[in-house]
Formats: sequence, C-alpha cells, structure tokens
Amino acid sequence: MRIPQAVQVVEVGPRDGLQNEAKPIPAAIRIALIDRLAAAGLPAVEVGSFVSGRRVPQMADTAAVLAGIASRPGVRFPVLTPNLEGFRAAVDAGAKEIAVFAAATETFCRRNLNCSIDESLARYAAVCAAARAHDVTVRGYVSCVLDCPYEGAVAPQAVAGIARALYDLGCREVSLGDTIGTGTPGRAVAMIDAVAEQVPVSALAVHFHDTYGQALANILACLERGVAVVDASVAGLGGCPFAPGAAGNVATEDVLYMLDGLGVGTGVDLAAVAEAGRFICAVLERAPASKAAQALAAHCRP
Amino acid sequence: MRIPQAVQVVEVGPRDGLQNEAKPIPAAIRIALIDRLAAAGLPAVEVGSFVSGRRVPQMADTAAVLAGIASRPGVRFPVLTPNLEGFRAAVDAGAKEIAVFAAATETFCRRNLNCSIDESLARYAAVCAAARAHDVTVRGYVSCVLDCPYEGAVAPQAVAGIARALYDLGCREVSLGDTIGTGTPGRAVAMIDAVAEQVPVSALAVHFHDTYGQALANILACLERGVAVVDASVAGLGGCPFAPGAAGNVATEDVLYMLDGLGVGTGVDLAAVAEAGRFICAVLERAPASKAAQALAAHCRP
Repeated sequence: MRIPQAVQVVEVGPRDGLQNEAKPIPAAIRIALIDRLAAAGLPAVEVGSFVSGRRVPQMADTAAVLAGIASRPGVRFPVLTPNLEGFRAAVDAGAKEIAVFAAATETFCRRNLNCSIDESLARYAAVCAAARAHDVTVRGYVSCVLDCPYEGAVAPQAVAGIARALYDLGCREVSLGDTIGTGTPGRAVAMIDAVAEQVPVSALAVHFHDTYGQALANILACLERGVAVVDASVAGLGGCPFAPGAAGNVATEDVLYMLDGLGVGTGVDLAAVAEAGRFICAVLERAPASKAAQALAAHCRP
Repeated sequence: MRIPQAVQVVEVGPRDGLQNEAKPIPAAIRIALIDRLAAAGLPAVEVGSFVSGRRVPQMADTAAVLAGIASRPGVRFPVLTPNLEGFRAAVDAGAKEIAVFAAATETFCRRNLNCSIDESLARYAAVCAAARAHDVTVRGYVSCVLDCPYEGAVAPQAVAGIARALYDLGCREVSLGDTIGTGTPGRAVAMIDAVAEQVPVSALAVHFHDTYGQALANILACLERGVAVVDASVAGLGGCPFAPGAAGNVATEDVLYMLDGLGVGTGVDLAAVAEAGRFICAVLERAPASKAAQALAAHCRP
C-alpha cells in the first residue's frame, strides 16, 4: 500500500463543528478545547470565523477566542474570513492564517455566499492580496467537490477549475470538501486525479464528511493518491445541516486510529484528542460521534 | 482503482447479530427478517446456529426458522454447526449449507469452543466429511485474524495456516474475521496477502467489525487485493461482546452504499435492505447502527 509516510491532520471541530451547534459555546470553553487539541499535537486547529455574528452567532466571539488561546510555536490557527472586512478583523485579532471558502457549484455558492462563483473569486483575490501584504497565510476551501445538495453530481473538472483558481490566488493549501458526505472512494479518486492535474498534490487537503459512513474509505483512497493533509473534527462535531440527525465531519479520533495503524506519522496523541472530545461532549451533553473514541472509552477487552 | 467488478455480500445479521442480543427474538420475526433480506437480493443470508440452546438461547429455534423461511432458488442460507451433533440437526432441518468456526489463537479457541485449535480442526474434519456425504456445502470462519482479545496481535502466517486447514478440509469459502474490529487497512492487506499464498483469493471472504470505525477502509483495501466476498450485518446488528456499547459488525447498508458508489455489482437493493433494518430495529427498539441507513432515513437534502 503506497501512502505518504507522514500526514498532517487539520482539526476543524472548533469551527466547522461548533458553528453547527444549536447554541453558541462560550469563548472560554472554545479556548479550552482549542488548547487541548493543540497540546495533543495537532499541527493545525481551526479557531473560528470572522463572519456576521448575526448570521452565525456561534462564531461571534472568534476575536476573543483567538486572543485567548495559548500560543504554540509551529501550530497553525486558521480562521475563516469571507471578505476584506472579515480579513481586517482577523488580522486585528492577531490571525496569522486565514481561510477562504469557495464552492464548486453556482447554486451552493449563491446560497452560502450570496454571489456567483466568479464574484466569490474576485472577493478572494482582494483578500489574498491583502493577506500577502500582511504576511498572512491563506487556506482555500472548495465545497461540494463530489455532490451538491442543490445540483447533484459535480464534474471533477469543475472542482479542478476552482481549486486551481484558489491556488493561483495564493492559497497555500486547498481543502476539497465532500460537504454532504455522499462520496465513495472511486469518485473521490477521480476528483483528486482531475484536481492534481491543476494543483500540486502536496498543496491538497481532503475534507470528508461521514454522513454515509464512507469518510475513512475515501481518505484511504486519497492517501493512495498521495494526499497528505486530512481535515477532521474531534468527536465528529458538526452534524450534517442537510440531513438533520445524520453524521457530519469525519471524527479526528477515527482518522488518527487509522493513520496510527497504517504506521503513518502524525505527531498527534490519539488519547489526548479523545480526552478533548470527551471534554467538549460533556459540555454538549452527548457522546462523542467517533467509533474509535467509543471503543477506547469502552476499553475493548475480554 | 483495481477492484472486483462484482462482489457477493453475505448477510450475517440474523445469526451473528441476533445471537448477541440480550433477549432471544421469536422465530416468526427471525423468519420475517430473513425473508426480507433474501428478497432484497442478498445472495447469502446466515439463518442461525445449531449450538447448545442452553449456551446460546438466542439461536435455540434455528430449526424452526430454517423450516419457516421462503425458499429462494440460488440464495444460500448457511447455518453454524460446531460439531457432528449440530451438523445432523442442521441436515434434519433441511440445511444445504453449514458453517464451521475456527480461531487463529489458542486462547480464543479454548474460550469459544473449549478445545485446542487442533481439536477443533479434528471436529471439523468429521463435520466436513459428513457434509460431503450429504452434499452439503461448508463455509469456514476464522476468528481473530488481526488481533485477539486475549493474546493481542496475531501473526498473518498463523491465520494462513488455519485458513488453509479449513480449505483443505473442504470449506468452499473461508471467512476471515476481525472479531474485535481493531484492524486497520495495512495490517488487513498483510494478512490477506499471507492467506492468499495458501488459499485462492476467490475462496476468501472478509468479515470486519466496525468497532473502531475502520471496517469500510479495511474492506476497500481487501477489495483492492481481489477479495470479492464481504460479510456484513443489516443495521450493524451485533455489537461487540468485548467492548459493551461499542459498534460490532459492519452494517450491510454502509457496505452496499460503498459498493454501489464504486460501480461494483452486488445484485442487492440497498433501499430494501435498509427497510429490513428498520423492521428489525423497530423490534429491538433502537435506531439502525448504520450511517448510510441513518442518512437515507434523514433524506440528505437542502
């Protein structure tokens, strides 16, 4: 099995997970969660979003969260910024890395950002130029890389085009998101192959949702294509906004268990991540949505 | 991605699943479940076990279940038989296919069968000889092919030896079981490679538990090695007797969703299997332990 010897796991739970919670989580708890995740060895922990506090109240305190987390040399703490206004707020709050989020279909882009794909890229061109001027790193997201909840199956070439545009704007890393978790490994690989013709595979991340239970199989298939950055969410935080009750982001614990078993280096302590997952799940009053976390807690034994 | 064009999914829920339920399920319900699963197009549905009704009360009515299910040409309905006594009862009840179950470690064999591995194989030699005389097909199981709850990691060569012994005794198919669901894809492939040196890969099945969420990734890796028979349990029936509360058998719905997405032919109607899962889960008063089933029920949509 030819896969990378080392993989970077990008923890998105404090942003992609908590933004989908019904109630906003207090900044102090978000800070404590992020500190635990960074201390567990995760090389990147997404902190939050500088978006409208009216539209996304769950992320309203992101400046306070960014100010409150322990600094940790070498660890990335990206924050999402939809436009120049968000970018300025992020930089004012001390962000060294931001993320912009595009979509592979016009309808999803319109519903999520209220503009066309071209308009979104023009916005991000301004954000990326400003980021360059401020020596801020940029991560790019592409949503709906396999299926769109509004338009159905998405052509790999469309994804490749958006990924290339983000890369050309200066995104150091482009994260390819199976936003509704409907993908399976063959289609995931076909999409990666198309994108890799436009963007170096070393600059690609994959972002799978486990809605249909396929995330780890999809990740494995992408590792076999050389992808070495994997997004995941502690305790599977997030859920699926398009299928209430169904699973959302792949759980960081499940990804780490697989990578550990494969002998792939991550630098992350699975037990410490699982502990962080129990911490936040106690606040949310539910069990971690991670089979590895559940099995570890159950102490699989005779 | 080089994988088989067609895969046989062997449904083990009515046996491996229901035998782990706290309470025995009435024969009429077991019959209705099996009939639904066979009608969904599954090529093999395990019916039950001819074991001590005192030790495994959940399987006590297997003769009645076998007598009650609708016959369906071409569909296999194996039943487990631990010894000649069980074999005779199975044949009297009309079984055309039986299964014997070995283990890859001495401790597991001793705890499960109360004998050594060699003694278990001697028993199965007698059962296989009787089966040949009665024109009954035999399936063989090997438990603990990656890890044993008592002995830890299991050497691939040990698994290969047991698998070869079962094959040489006349087992048409040898199912390799990750009984505690701790395996990851690299180790699964190393095990398959070792076994495939002793037994034709066309005679191998894989039987993964999803305790740590790894089952689909493991199955995908084994498909890439040419394995074309996959055991699964509708609605993930079964749980893990070694880690109460943790997941057990991989859910048939999740396996079918992946195979459908990969374009692999199975002849099975996923929606009909999911319906069978909802039927038995209503009896068991819990939700199906299948992410694909949950997502289908939630109708992932905007």
